[in-house]
Formats: sequence, structure tokens, C-alpha cells
Amino acid sequence: MESSRAAYLESNQSRFLEELCEFVSIPSVSALPKHAGDVETAADWLASRVEGAGFENVVRLPTGGTPVVYGDWLHAPGRPTVLLYGHYDVQPADPVESWDSPPFAPEVRDGRLYGRGASDNKGNLLAALIGLEAVLQVDGSLPVNVKLFLEGEEEIGSPFSLGLLTTDKERLAADICVNADGIQYGVGKPTILGSFRGMTGIEVTVRGPSSDVHSGIFGGTIHNPLHAMARLVASFHDADGRIAVQGFYDDVVPVGKEDRERLGRAPFDEQEYIAGLDVDAVFGEAGYTTNERAWRRPTLELNGLWGGFQGEGSKTIVPSEAHAKVSCRLVANQDPGRIQELLEAHVAKHAPPGVRVSVTRKRGLANPYLLPLDHPGVAAMADSYREIYDQDPFYIGSGGTIPVTAAMLEELGIYSLVFGFCTRDEQIHAPNEFFRLSSFATAQKAFGILIHKLAEIEFRKS
Amino acid sequence: MESSRAAYLESNQSRFLEELCEFVSIPSVSALPKHAGDVETAADWLASRVEGAGFENVVRLPTGGTPVVYGDWLHAPGRPTVLLYGHYDVQPADPVESWDSPPFAPEVRDGRLYGRGASDNKGNLLAALIGLEAVLQVDGSLPVNVKLFLEGEEEIGSPFSLGLLTTDKERLAADICVNADGIQYGVGKPTILGSFRGMTGIEVTVRGPSSDVHSGIFGGTIHNPLHAMARLVASFHDADGRIAVQGFYDDVVPVGKEDRERLGRAPFDEQEYIAGLDVDAVFGEAGYTTNERAWRRPTLELNGLWGGFQGEGSKTIVPSEAHAKVSCRLVANQDPGRIQELLEAHVAKHAPPGVRVSVTRKRGLANPYLLPLDHPGVAAMADSYREIYDQDPFYIGSGGTIPVTAAMLEELGIYSLVFGFCTRDEQIHAPNEFFRLSSFATAQKAFGILIHKLAEIEFRKS
Repeated sequence: MESSRAAYLESNQSRFLEELCEFVSIPSVSALPKHAGDVETAADWLASRVEGAGFENVVRLPTGGTPVVYGDWLHAPGRPTVLLYGHYDVQPADPVESWDSPPFAPEVRDGRLYGRGASDNKGNLLAALIGLEAVLQVDGSLPVNVKLFLEGEEEIGSPFSLGLLTTDKERLAADICVNADGIQYGVGKPTILGSFRGMTGIEVTVRGPSSDVHSGIFGGTIHNPLHAMARLVASFHDADGRIAVQGFYDDVVPVGKEDRERLGRAPFDEQEYIAGLDVDAVFGEAGYTTNERAWRRPTLELNGLWGGFQGEGSKTIVPSEAHAKVSCRLVANQDPGRIQELLEAHVAKHAPPGVRVSVTRKRGLANPYLLPLDHPGVAAMADSYREIYDQDPFYIGSGGTIPVTAAMLEELGIYSLVFGFCTRDEQIHAPNEFFRLSSFATAQKAFGILIHKLAEIEFRKS
Repeated sequence: MESSRAAYLESNQSRFLEELCEFVSIPSVSALPKHAGDVETAADWLASRVEGAGFENVVRLPTGGTPVVYGDWLHAPGRPTVLLYGHYDVQPADPVESWDSPPFAPEVRDGRLYGRGASDNKGNLLAALIGLEAVLQVDGSLPVNVKLFLEGEEEIGSPFSLGLLTTDKERLAADICVNADGIQYGVGKPTILGSFRGMTGIEVTVRGPSSDVHSGIFGGTIHNPLHAMARLVASFHDADGRIAVQGFYDDVVPVGKEDRERLGRAPFDEQEYIAGLDVDAVFGEAGYTTNERAWRRPTLELNGLWGGFQGEGSKTIVPSEAHAKVSCRLVANQDPGRIQELLEAHVAKHAPPGVRVSVTRKRGLANPYLLPLDHPGVAAMADSYREIYDQDPFYIGSGGTIPVTAAMLEELGIYSLVFGFCTRDEQIHAPNEFFRLSSFATAQKAFGILIHKLAEIEFRKS
């Protein structure tokens, strides 16, 4: 059966690539209001593709934000029910001028498809659907029941769509989630992701004079909001990069000896890492390796900082305002709401004189997530990887945030198996994002294999 | 004669206003390359207006940058030669969305003309030309020889045009400069400006990874350029606002007792100043009054600071770059080139680890300027003010920079009498710049009076 599925996948590969190009060409940027219509278009496209794959009861579930595309195939009585998760929204494409080809005009070069969302998450998601379609087409049935939960606001922290996990529990009830929004450690380096960082943040505004004023006339007599902002945001870290917000680390689970050893086995070349980023050195909290910093330690990052004149040439003003976007990646057991309180308290305590400082809380908070290594789904993933790569997987963490994993555990009582085939070099969230066509094809096979492994498990309710 | 001139001015005032509207509607923004053609258009408009006023030998002198509009009237043998200075370029209009009417579609509201350049310097400059035109039209001649030096790059620090003071000395030779780019302390508060601050600056770039990267995957492992930049630029000042760049104050002339008393007589209401800016408090170097901070003490201001995502919503990246535009207002006897060296040394010393920091030197440096109070031109200005306002002028400094005053002294050996009628509330360099129609009319009369006072002076070469 597997060889027939492989033949089905091979003979249809050019159609699948065309479909992926179509999907990527829809600029479904959830962060930007001007793309709201495109996000809807992507939902329509996906709903139609899901029906084409053989799913039933396909519906766009309203969320208050962008719709969740649902569908199911429930003809395997007595077998486990798998909830397949993915997202059809993408990050903004700017700076657009840094792309070698337009972000929403996907282009194949050197065996890679370039375009925003090619890797995160449209490529992996479509591969998962194709993998299940191949099983259905060739076998006539699936070995498990499958439900789909495909959301359109992952890139903005899923402020609305995860509400369905609370309000639509019965429809979404399942034994396990297969999350198609994962990332591999590298090509041919199968990986089991055991943790995600959570997310919180604030936006800080510093206001000075009610409009930009002449730096000759007023300069030196009032506090320049840019000076005040620089001083304020510089206070978030000490000179060595450790976060200086009081209480920030209080709830962080320390990195244990065994955990440290296991993470240390993941292949990692620091010089390659440095060269890949084109920096001179890594930088971060003292006492931790680069991977520990990324997977086990929280961050406080400025994602944007701005005020005053940014054009060519010069404009000699004291600007009216300064802005900073701050986000934090959290680790177990930090609480996103509590961290926002600590950030607000820090800003209030360090607010410079002569300016007005205000804070807005970021929406779309996410808890950190940890998958127990003795969960039967972990073995199913490991077996699937051995079948594909003839190799044991590495166990790693992720520094990224997939809020849905924590939410599914909390609301549906199910763990998530993160099973994706994009790799960390694919420029996700950056210009020139790409997905290897070889990874696209491997992923299609892999999802078919995984659901057969899951079919053999007797799930207990967690 | 004066009453006939007044009648001439009055009967033509609606034409003059139309002309000013025409002039202001040309977006001659010297800082922005996209407006290069508009700057040329403004030069053409001005050359034509100068000929209309009765000047001869009108020519656009090439400078390597934007042209200087020259013209002369040299039919007063044995009398002093006055070099009239003004500029036809303007500051950028952004943020355009903060204007109540479009910046380059001038509009009269409540006796004020709103538009970019209405006050700085198109209004004052046109008023000066009109004042001289009125004398020529009514008297048939001027009481002094007049030459014009009207430049198009004052707002970017005159990087090219002042070169003519070196290369075209003979054409521009004069006894005194009347600089029409001045500012009054307030409406009906005649003012003699005795000093200007000089100007220097740098642009700082901090580079991290070669493109924006995902803050989940890479956050915490490399130095975020925004963190590095915030720390770096925060180091320019201490917490009280004093500049912390080593050697910065070394050449500053201390504020003397007599100087302090004279400046203290200028009318000033600090609460009104604060309210006008809509700030909660003044802020600056300890030990100095607000006016002393503005007129006698140097500054280091961030005019722009930016990097990362600035749009609506969120984008969780570690950005690739951060930028800062830094300018300094200097006082006697600071040297702009020397200060650039100190700034560069400071940046090199405080460059944070894990990022690459580079510095570009700002062009258009300007020396600080000081006019001796016993210069005969000072008395001519004071007499003119008494004639118009029946009031003694105040003696003040300016925190602003008019590089041409220092350059004319250095190259042509002449002092500048700064004689302008815009006031500090007119939102120059900011949204909703305006010029009072009453100030426009007063200025036209005043320039006619001033040249008659100057006609009586026997200038010695300085």
C-alpha cells in the first residue's frame, strides 16, 4: 500500500506544486488590516482544497477574527481520532525590497520554492493534506478518524481562533493533535520537538511636545522622546544581555542536568550558526549554550523601535513621539499575563522625567508548552522518522511559539505531535523565505506513515 | 517718501499674498532627492520675481548643489553695499497626516497663511524683496547698493552654496549682510539676535544578522541591533541630560555674569513655554535657565531613531539593522569637525559586542556665530525697530543654526544683521507652519526702513 501511495504522490507532484504556488500567491498577511480580504481568500482556497482531498463536513467556522477551516473524515469507528492543525496566514513580507523575487509571486529556483509562507506554514500544511489524500485515494479509507483545525491568525498569536477550543469542544474532540506547523533541525535530521516558548509583550509610547519641534529653537530645553525611550528600553537588559526586569525569571524552570545533556546531543555547529546569520559572535545570557538560550531561557526583544525623521538627508527636529514594540518568549512556568504586569511595573519605575510614557498590552498571549517524553505519540513520531530516514530522531526544543499546543492541552485535554518538514535555514518571517521541493515531497509521505502509527495506539484521556 | 511707500505696499498687498501663495506651493524640499526638480522650479520662480522687483544682472549661480539666485542694483556710488541673504528651500513636510491643510497648498485661516515655508523662509524673503521693490518704485532708486544671495540648501546646512563665498568673492563683495532668515522673540517684541549655534552630526548604523530573523528561533542567542543601539545612544547623555561625550564641553565659552543678566531681561514665561509645547516640564543641563540652555549651551539630539517593524500589529523579529540620526547644536568656540571626531570616538568606545557599528559624518557643518554689540549695524537695526514699534529691542541669542553668518564673516569679512519677522510660535520645521499676514506686511515696511539707516553708516572693513 505504501508503494502505491508513493506512486500516487509521484505521479501528481507537478499538480501539487502548482497548488502550492496558488496557495502561496495569496497574500494572507494576518497582521495587516489591508490584507483582511486576502486572508479570507486563502480560507476559501483551503476549504475547497480540503474538500478535494476527500474530507466531509467542510465548513469555515467563524471566530470573531479570521475563520477556522474545519473538515473531517470519521469512518474509522473504534480507532483514534486525530486533530490535524495548521495555519493559512503568513507574516508580513516587508522589507519587500530585500526579496530577490516578489514575495507573493512564488518562484522555483534550484529546487526550492521562494515566497512568503512557502515554508511557514502553507508548504507543510498542504503536504499534510496531500499525504492524507493519498491514503484515501489509494486505500479507500484512513486508518484513523481525522478532524481538521486550520486557522488564519497564527502569525498574530491566534487571538480569536483558539476560542473555538472552548466554545466548540464537541466538534473538535480528539485523542491527539498532529500539528503540521513544526520545524526540523535540518534536512535529513529528524527531530522531535518537546517544547515551545510562550509569548507576551507590550508596546511602549513616549510622548514629548505635541508636535515635532525645531531642534535649534527647543533643543536642550525639553526631554527628547528618543533620548527618553533609548534610556528606558536600554534598562530592560544589563550589559551582558540578561533581562533586568524585576521578577522576570522568578517562575522559570531551571535547566536540569539530564535535559542539558539531551539537548547537547542535537547537532550544532556554532561557527556555522554565526556564519549563517552573518554576525561576528553569538550574544546572550551568561552560563547557557546557544541552544539552551533559544529553547530553555526566556527573552525580551525589541521587535521595532522608532521615532523622528527616517528619510534620506537630515531633519533637525526634536520629535514628538517615540515607539517601541516589545515581545517576550517565555518558558515553563512563566505566565504571560504576570510577565506583562512586571513589564508595566518596570516601565513605570524607569519612566524618564519630562515625557509621558504609556504602555499597551499585546494581545495573543501564549503559554509555554512541554510534551512528556513518555507520551505514546512520541514513539509514533520516532518510528515514522526511522521508517523515512532510517535514523533515530534528535530531541530538541523550539524557541518559537505555537500557542495552540498549550491551548489544546488546556481546552481539549490533548497533547500535540509537532510534525513538520521545514528547516531553520528557510528564512521564515524574513525576506526570501523558501521551501525545498524535496521536503515538500517527503512531508507528503511522512504524514501518511504517521497516521498509520497513530492508528495502533490506545489513547487514554489525559 | 515713507508714506508713499506705505501706500504702494498697501495697494499691492493682495498681489503680494498671491505671490507668496505661489512661492509656498512649490515643494522645494532640499533634503529629499525626489524634490530636486521642485527646488529648481523655486529658483526659477524667485529669479523671475527678483527681476520683477527691479534688480539687474539676475542669474542662477551654479554651486554643485542647488543654484544661488543672484541679482544686484549698484547705482548708489559712494554708499554702502548691502548683501541681502535668504533661502528658497524648505524642510520636509512629514508627518504630512498631521497637517490641517496640505503643506504645499497654502491656505489663509484667521489672518495666517498656512504652508511649509510660509514662515521659514519664503515669507520673510519675499517681504524683503517687496520692501526693496517699494523703495525702487516710489523713490526711483535705492539709498544703498544691494546684492542678492538667495540660496536653495539652507535646510540641509548649505553644503555647496556657501562655496560661492570663496570662489565668487568679487561678485559678492559687500559692507554688511542683511540676513532675512531671522526670527523675532514674539509678535511686537523686536529682537536683536546676537548669536547662532553651529551644527554638526553623525549617522550611526548598527548591523546584526544579514536579514531580519525570527525572534523565536534566534531570539536570545544574538545581540538584537535595537538593544545595542538603545544602549549606545543612551550613553550620549547622563540621566540629567548633560552630554557624556568625553571632551564635548572643552571649548565652550562659559556663560558670563553680564551676558546672563542681559539674556535674563528677554521676556519669558516658563509656564507658557511648557504649555505651548504640551509637555509637563522643561528638561536639560543642570545650572542653566531654559534660555541659556537654548542660546548658550550645546546639544546632542537624536533627530531620528529606527529599526525593525513599525506597522500596525506585531512582527516577532530580531531586526537586521538599527539607525540613528544625531545632530549637535554648537556654541562658541566649539569646532564642528572636532566634535564629529569626539562623537566617533565615543561610538567606537561604547560599541556593544556582537553587532557591527558604523558612523557616517553629517555634511553641512556650521560654526557658531557671535555679532559684537558695538557693531554699527546693531544700532541701525535698533533704530529701525524703534521707528516701527516705538520700543527698544530685546537682545537675545538663537539656538538655531544659520551657517551663512559664520561663513560670510570668514570669507567676505562681513557681519550679518539678522532681520526677520517670523516668530517662535509659527511651527517652523513642524506640521501646520504658518506666517501672520500682519507680520508679512510689517516686514515689507521694515526692510525699506533698515536700508535707509544702513545708508548713513561709514563701514570700515572688518
